[in-house]
Amino acid sequence: MSDKGLTLWFTGLSGSGKSTLAQYLTPKLLELGSKVEVLDGDEVRENLSKGLGFSKEDRDTNIARIGYVANMLARNGVIAITAAISPYASLRRAVRERAQARFVEVYVQCALDVVEERDTKGLYKKARAGIIKNFTGISDPYEEPEHAEVVVNTGEETIEQSAEKVLDYLRSEGLLNETADSAS
Amino acid sequence: MSDKGLTLWFTGLSGSGKSTLAQYLTPKLLELGSKVEVLDGDEVRENLSKGLGFSKEDRDTNIARIGYVANMLARNGVIAITAAISPYASLRRAVRERAQARFVEVYVQCALDVVEERDTKGLYKKARAGIIKNFTGISDPYEEPEHAEVVVNTGEETIEQSAEKVLDYLRSEGLLNETADSAS
Repeated sequence: MSDKGLTLWFTGLSGSGKSTLAQYLTPKLLELGSKVEVLDGDEVRENLSKGLGFSKEDRDTNIARIGYVANMLARNGVIAITAAISPYASLRRAVRERAQARFVEVYVQCALDVVEERDTKGLYKKARAGIIKNFTGISDPYEEPEHAEVVVNTGEETIEQSAEKVLDYLRSEGLLNETADSAS
Repeated sequence: MSDKGLTLWFTGLSGSGKSTLAQYLTPKLLELGSKVEVLDGDEVRENLSKGLGFSKEDRDTNIARIGYVANMLARNGVIAITAAISPYASLRRAVRERAQARFVEVYVQCALDVVEERDTKGLYKKARAGIIKNFTGISDPYEEPEHAEVVVNTGEETIEQSAEKVLDYLRSEGLLNETADSAS
């Protein structure tokens, strides 16, 4: 069992593939002997943030909570993957600053027209129609990460390619068990 | 390092000594090689439940959140000690039912007149004066646990005695590292 806890912070537009990538990576990391928890945006809203809306203040509170829990897991040897939009750079920075274990930001990039075309949950349509307010990318800003440790583009890469980029980074930083094994 | 994660759920009146006992136990458990996190009522309210009040509904939400996080830690090998009043039996039961690792309820008993005499945070005085509403033990019920795995009484025992009761239980259930060592 690895005790290399870290926060793997995915950020990107709704529909960019954060959750899909998190779910795809989880069994691969488990196979390598890591402990993994996925803090998915929707699940977290249900379990930790019910009642919060999508104003800047409520989004910030939601993100701070995810960061608090991810950090607690990470400092206990778990790879905590978060998959919330986390649109504001200031909050992502605040969470990173509070992290007591490694913090790896993964920008799950995807062009707006691509996620809007996908519209997996039908949310973009509702946002364009004004039925959903404060929708990231449409009526609320998404501040792109400038210094993410990993950038993937789910509009241009296969999920295998995106996942491999993340694993490559973790491997190169000695954050996976296999690295330790092959080095010993 | 132990991977014996569990939730150590303290429940009891405000001022009964839940946090004190949690803080006292933490270094002892760490010494035994366990990983430990304390989810203290006040800290959790700040980080996970800001904005929630003390109505039954809000209390239940707060407790459910603590249970959610404790469970995530416990299933990853951490001893998650929770130290919230958690006055309602139904919610404690719900949290126990959702637990995926061992769940050990510790009733931190202390007579009302003793905690009221202590009044560590000056809250009982305010509750008696009606300045604080919905105060457990005064204007809101505390439902005593009927099947707690451990019962300590901080009005009649020293903290060493109370702590030893908890450790004894964990030891007898094989939940501490030293047990594994002495058995091997």
